[in-house]
Amino acid sequence: MPIKEMKIARGEEKASLVLKNCQVVNVLNGQIEKGDVAIENGLIVGVGDYDGHKEVDLEWKYICPGFIDGHVHIESSMLTPSQFSRLVMPKGTTTVIADPHEIANVCGLDGIDYMLNASGPLPLDVYIMLPSCVPSTDFEVTGAILLADDLRKLKDRENVLGLGEMMNYPGVILGNKTVHDKLDMMSDRHIDGHAPTVTGKDLNAYISAGVKTDHECTTKEELLEKVGKGMYVHIREGSATRNLDTLLQGVTDSNSRRLMFCTDDKQPMDILNEGHIDHNVRRAIELGLSPITAIQMATLNTAECYSLRQKGAIAPGYEADLLVLSDLESITVEQVYKKGQLVADDGSPLFEANPLIDQRVLDTVRIDSPETVNLNMLVESGIAKVISLIDHSIVTNSVVRKIDTQDGNFVHNDKLDILKLAVIERHKNTGNVGLGLVEGYGLIHGAVGLTIAHDSHNIIVIGDNDQDMRLAIQTLKEQKGGMAICMDGTVLDKLQLEVGGLMTDAPLDQVVTRMEDMNKLAMDMGVNKNIEPFMTLAFLALPVIPELKLTDKGLFDVGKFQFVDINA
Amino acid sequence: MPIKEMKIARGEEKASLVLKNCQVVNVLNGQIEKGDVAIENGLIVGVGDYDGHKEVDLEWKYICPGFIDGHVHIESSMLTPSQFSRLVMPKGTTTVIADPHEIANVCGLDGIDYMLNASGPLPLDVYIMLPSCVPSTDFEVTGAILLADDLRKLKDRENVLGLGEMMNYPGVILGNKTVHDKLDMMSDRHIDGHAPTVTGKDLNAYISAGVKTDHECTTKEELLEKVGKGMYVHIREGSATRNLDTLLQGVTDSNSRRLMFCTDDKQPMDILNEGHIDHNVRRAIELGLSPITAIQMATLNTAECYSLRQKGAIAPGYEADLLVLSDLESITVEQVYKKGQLVADDGSPLFEANPLIDQRVLDTVRIDSPETVNLNMLVESGIAKVISLIDHSIVTNSVVRKIDTQDGNFVHNDKLDILKLAVIERHKNTGNVGLGLVEGYGLIHGAVGLTIAHDSHNIIVIGDNDQDMRLAIQTLKEQKGGMAICMDGTVLDKLQLEVGGLMTDAPLDQVVTRMEDMNKLAMDMGVNKNIEPFMTLAFLALPVIPELKLTDKGLFDVGKFQFVDINA
Repeated sequence: MPIKEMKIARGEEKASLVLKNCQVVNVLNGQIEKGDVAIENGLIVGVGDYDGHKEVDLEWKYICPGFIDGHVHIESSMLTPSQFSRLVMPKGTTTVIADPHEIANVCGLDGIDYMLNASGPLPLDVYIMLPSCVPSTDFEVTGAILLADDLRKLKDRENVLGLGEMMNYPGVILGNKTVHDKLDMMSDRHIDGHAPTVTGKDLNAYISAGVKTDHECTTKEELLEKVGKGMYVHIREGSATRNLDTLLQGVTDSNSRRLMFCTDDKQPMDILNEGHIDHNVRRAIELGLSPITAIQMATLNTAECYSLRQKGAIAPGYEADLLVLSDLESITVEQVYKKGQLVADDGSPLFEANPLIDQRVLDTVRIDSPETVNLNMLVESGIAKVISLIDHSIVTNSVVRKIDTQDGNFVHNDKLDILKLAVIERHKNTGNVGLGLVEGYGLIHGAVGLTIAHDSHNIIVIGDNDQDMRLAIQTLKEQKGGMAICMDGTVLDKLQLEVGGLMTDAPLDQVVTRMEDMNKLAMDMGVNKNIEPFMTLAFLALPVIPELKLTDKGLFDVGKFQFVDINA
Repeated sequence: MPIKEMKIARGEEKASLVLKNCQVVNVLNGQIEKGDVAIENGLIVGVGDYDGHKEVDLEWKYICPGFIDGHVHIESSMLTPSQFSRLVMPKGTTTVIADPHEIANVCGLDGIDYMLNASGPLPLDVYIMLPSCVPSTDFEVTGAILLADDLRKLKDRENVLGLGEMMNYPGVILGNKTVHDKLDMMSDRHIDGHAPTVTGKDLNAYISAGVKTDHECTTKEELLEKVGKGMYVHIREGSATRNLDTLLQGVTDSNSRRLMFCTDDKQPMDILNEGHIDHNVRRAIELGLSPITAIQMATLNTAECYSLRQKGAIAPGYEADLLVLSDLESITVEQVYKKGQLVADDGSPLFEANPLIDQRVLDTVRIDSPETVNLNMLVESGIAKVISLIDHSIVTNSVVRKIDTQDGNFVHNDKLDILKLAVIERHKNTGNVGLGLVEGYGLIHGAVGLTIAHDSHNIIVIGDNDQDMRLAIQTLKEQKGGMAICMDGTVLDKLQLEVGGLMTDAPLDQVVTRMEDMNKLAMDMGVNKNIEPFMTLAFLALPVIPELKLTDKGLFDVGKFQFVDINA
């Protein structure tokens, strides 16, 4: 701290910037305090009566610390970090704890390196948790396998905080060595968790292994147990997973200090229309939480959890990440200051995109002959295990249905909402194709496909006929990743996601327009309005979320933790 | 975490130790929870229904996490770390954040090294904050001068957490380079503060410099301001300084998470009779604070402040530092477990002292001719500035008094409670003698002297006649440090403190008996019963506590921050 700052803090010299006449939301003591905020060199030097070389009169508006997203996969915004920052900063998010496990599944360490490099120059602070589960299981082919020794290479990189969500909770509690090698390697850093429905002694084991957070609570009881056992719990509002309304019932004065907000996976149009962490705060207040507690959960608590000691509060020595709010109900973010710089005003970013061209993460859809992919699915019994979708959830049920067959192969029945699902390996050109059946998607005719398919991000495609499904696959290959909707041999709409098949450097408007059009089109084609046409699909290949899933290697029962025959 | 622990946490194998039938004080969620606590390899693996190879039935007694003293000078117990641990662990203190700045003032880096080495083998966890102010000012001769480059040598030693209390708050806020070099060197670690009465913009500057805690609050308003500005505040109950009753008025549900307990400086008999951190907890509950909040302030909050991530709670992965309590009112600590080992039972330690003989910290009283020290004090005006003691405080007032003189030299007047005070440099044999006057000490006849004199620990001696004062100095030299009471040419009582002139490896009983006898003797000789005969004296040489103090270089006005003539 240079001597000059001491003089400025003491009021002997003018600060570079003073926000005059603020109502400061002080998350440290739960008070609203009137005063000026003096800022020098990106840091707050004092709240009080200050003069500045530049002064901005806030006319007694509220200011609060910048919001922190405690757990996010930037890739789920389909935007590169640069475009993502232009989207979320106007919403008030100034810091994110990001787990780049999507791009890591496609590009390995190169993908993480890309995210670190692409984030470095941004006004948004992006902290990285090293992906712990690449691949998420051994039950799929992924673009990379990251072991403890691989992750160790990035452990000491700037902005790396620790180990990302340890999704392989069975591996943890059953003592899998590969899993524990990673936990041990990171035992002196922060380790994020992911333990849906894990409870009792299994949860004791999981936490004993060093895991410190969880963002998968879906019930009040889960939240209470996890906080009581020492976890910090992220209350999540994503696109497909919305836990806030339920979990807020568990928030008490005694446990709120250990609660935080996150988005996890949120699509760009949802961020644009509804908000980012500001949405979590707003919704919590709507449901009756005190505004200061809600803002604490979006700021101080997260900073404490991740040991970000200069973030999360408006006080001397803290980074000048500040939001000007219209009021403490609607939480409309009017201006955003990052390290004392005005970076967003009235919902718009004041900085340009800063794309990073990195050949290592481009051209990642590697399949030879999409037009000849074999999608024949043998179900000799005519009684099949079917993935049954649950509205507004990424969890599925495993159900048994009688289906139509021809020569033992599944054939679509127009009267049944049961569609063929295919996962086509796209990293190593193995030719792997996993086939299954889905109930509740609703598509009447055609195919929907994308290169986002958690967590291996093989191609996933659903449809009522093989021709349209193959066309979708071919389209995805041609445009180096993204999304496509096909019907009767025609590509009805598509979106390119050229970075790892997951993200694009295209401007937000384009992406959002495309996505909105494609979602609308999918729904016009019959897709169930209580699911996300693309995001729900994208989670059907994730074999760590119950109950029945599909990878490029086949149908997977998560409860049994093994592949199962489609014949019931 | 070995695989075995996973099985134990899951209940598939027995734990080494299970405390059965506990009422667990869960500081994470504010609840009391019934269950067994399973412990393996020093760590808690779960709370629930567990079986152990060894089981201890606690018959539904309360258990809480081990207490943490957030700021302590072990030297003030006059016991070496080994003897100190035998004293405080039976009181429930399992971890201390210690600033060895007393021994550092005497022995420099060797003194800190001694404390680290002496603490290493103990069951008590001793974390070290590197002393920031050796010497505390330039206004005294000390045994060592520690600059940023010196401290850097110990920065990465195990158990070193950061920089100890930055007492030179004027140096901080006025931008003193030597001071800021230390702050900058430690900016990536924890920095403790010490900022009595610092407020407003000065406090903003002090905190901006990176200081994170304060233990010098004496008013509710001070506490509220400091917490609101981002500091963690220690609520202190020492021997001479007792701030809890006052500060507790400032504790709210919103700010308690940033409050902690400490003892700072507490004499051995006070610890023995009254307690250590258990006393702070007990007193807080007596004053109406909820037991769980009080225990949080003694455990979780301190652990969070100092980033001790496996301490401060009873939950999986936390160290098994556990106290068995009689109830949640009297907070009588019945048993103490440290990392799963029973270390104290019914108030007695179950481990032996483990003294470390280190020649570098012995034989530290270096003066040539104590018998000829010149104690003549010229006060030609007959109107003197006098240090006026305040009951139960280490702050003094500066008052002006008419005194008797002979040939311009002060002479004692039996009708006035004004005594001569001398500080004799004892590190470098400079021959420096500082002389002053004290009102309110109460001694009628004789001399009281000691080698504990914060923070330089020169010899400080008070008396009504020069002969007894010189005898006290001579006695202190002969016994290589400690305390002495002399009258009419006789040493009435004495205590040896051979380690740095501050501590002894003698058994606690001996030290306490000696101290009690000497305190009683001092009071029998007239010493004011509202001060501590020795500890109050020991703070009269500390030129960072207002208002008037005395060093070996002369009389010092803390407000003016300069030496002043004794003539008013």
